[in-house]
Amino acid sequence: MTAKRYDVLALGNAIVDVIATAEEDFLATHGLVKGSMALIDEARAEALYAAMGPGKVVSGGSAANTIAGLASFGGRGAFIGKVRDDELGRLYRHDLTALGVGFDTPAASEGPATARCFVIVTPDGERTMSTYLGACQNLTPADVDEATVAAADIVYLEGYLWDPPAAKDAFRKASELAHRAGGRVALSLSDSFCVDRYRDEFTGLIRNRTVDLVFANEHELKSLYQTGDFDAAMQALRAENVLAVVTRSENGVLAVTPDGIVAEPVFPVERVVDATGAGDLFAAGFLHGLTSGREVRDCLRLGALAAAEIISHVGARPDVNLKTFAGNNGLL
Amino acid sequence: MTAKRYDVLALGNAIVDVIATAEEDFLATHGLVKGSMALIDEARAEALYAAMGPGKVVSGGSAANTIAGLASFGGRGAFIGKVRDDELGRLYRHDLTALGVGFDTPAASEGPATARCFVIVTPDGERTMSTYLGACQNLTPADVDEATVAAADIVYLEGYLWDPPAAKDAFRKASELAHRAGGRVALSLSDSFCVDRYRDEFTGLIRNRTVDLVFANEHELKSLYQTGDFDAAMQALRAENVLAVVTRSENGVLAVTPDGIVAEPVFPVERVVDATGAGDLFAAGFLHGLTSGREVRDCLRLGALAAAEIISHVGARPDVNLKTFAGNNGLL
Repeated sequence: MTAKRYDVLALGNAIVDVIATAEEDFLATHGLVKGSMALIDEARAEALYAAMGPGKVVSGGSAANTIAGLASFGGRGAFIGKVRDDELGRLYRHDLTALGVGFDTPAASEGPATARCFVIVTPDGERTMSTYLGACQNLTPADVDEATVAAADIVYLEGYLWDPPAAKDAFRKASELAHRAGGRVALSLSDSFCVDRYRDEFTGLIRNRTVDLVFANEHELKSLYQTGDFDAAMQALRAENVLAVVTRSENGVLAVTPDGIVAEPVFPVERVVDATGAGDLFAAGFLHGLTSGREVRDCLRLGALAAAEIISHVGARPDVNLKTFAGNNGLL
Repeated sequence: MTAKRYDVLALGNAIVDVIATAEEDFLATHGLVKGSMALIDEARAEALYAAMGPGKVVSGGSAANTIAGLASFGGRGAFIGKVRDDELGRLYRHDLTALGVGFDTPAASEGPATARCFVIVTPDGERTMSTYLGACQNLTPADVDEATVAAADIVYLEGYLWDPPAAKDAFRKASELAHRAGGRVALSLSDSFCVDRYRDEFTGLIRNRTVDLVFANEHELKSLYQTGDFDAAMQALRAENVLAVVTRSENGVLAVTPDGIVAEPVFPVERVVDATGAGDLFAAGFLHGLTSGREVRDCLRLGALAAAEIISHVGARPDVNLKTFAGNNGLL
């Protein structure tokens, strides 16, 4: 549908996930807040890893998971993010380019190692994340290639980019370049604690039209508007006059459009094995629908389908081809 | 039951698995023989990895998988194997020691990288492996610590140790030391192609009593005795007068004992997701039963249970605590 080279360019923290299962009491023992993402330094990363059980190592990073999902749907994606030129950095690049995603950001040849996120999955399938940002701290506006941004229909940015010092400047540069080239800009609010850290900046990005499309889950939305009441948060969101998509875990998904609210139920899953990546993959399906010219309701359905696939197994990258999976479920 | 410090000491190739799914035609395109393990050099490893889809990285290695399974059952295990002092080598050590497995073999500070096995899982759940031995080639008899061997009730050795040049000497040294200390020695035949490479040496190990217990699957047994007829192979095996355990995929498991053959069915699984590690984990359950003084039939059942757990998910290390899993299934 789009005449541009890429349907979506994602800009985000390039992070390798180290996923281990643990009982509930592991969280309390190590001061982890269930369901959250906390930033940790290198010393804490070493200590936490030493305490963890055996891990599965898979490429992750919120926006990168989204672009991997988009590619699995058959969408044309690109990624900008910073790894180190180490073993995990090479694994990371392989995993994206093997899906056909354009990923040309040069690896750092010095400084901290490729970032890793220690994901603790409790028996209920919930994930608690501790992230050592490592090489992500070296993502700067210089890494935002103008031609790549101009070649994308939608530039998708994760709120987590506010954590490493120079990445928010990369974010702003990407948004400006995208708009100048006639593209659209999407923001994922990432995490309710992330929203809490950068609330004013995020509402600023929405109000000054740095972003055209917002992805949030219920917790993030409540955090953004500092209310415990979902309806109040939705009312505040509608007043922003921005296209927005809200996920509510098992309670379905919503799109806030100029024509009103569109709601869809979640896609059924047998058992939630690992919730990691649910929001990321929802965004993948929605963005694929949007960039292939589908109606909002179909975009929501594609998002719900991709989220269902990802929570039914360990890891935040699809285990199956999402285009085939969608076809088998009558969606593509 | 045993007075020794370790129930089982495993000696094997220390290999990180990189697991990816692919359609059947990927095997033909890349000259891979379905269900086999082939050795590849570094150049071929690079080429194969570049052609593969995104991978899940998990610690593997046949004997190491077995000792991880034993530890998950609550057994006391140790491991001897060679990694390089690189990122994957550190991941590897973490994943074993996090389970309580003793693993003191020093990492190589020079030479090839930590070994990796590229595992291609086809839609039927079958796995095809290509192994770059890397640092495993530096495992020597000097790595076989006498005190550790003497402290083990059973020393478990994988046939794959015949591939790297010096490891077979480490194998022989471990067997001698074990017998001298009153321990028993077990051999896994590893793979039918491995048996084909070292048939005479393997039968020699059985006939000269270097090993007291043999683990084989149906294909390996047929390869050992160069027959396509399972009954003929079993007859040849019985003539060896060695305790032996044979797995027959979905057709059940057998033990050849001085008192005759004991047979048990497989443990039911909903869907075979990834067959990697089925034999390794069968051995883990059997050895745990044996070292905790159970009857052969119960040892077979524990083996079948562990194999069923491992083939129901991606990766060759258990996703759940096997002691709990066995308890929930009325076995422990």
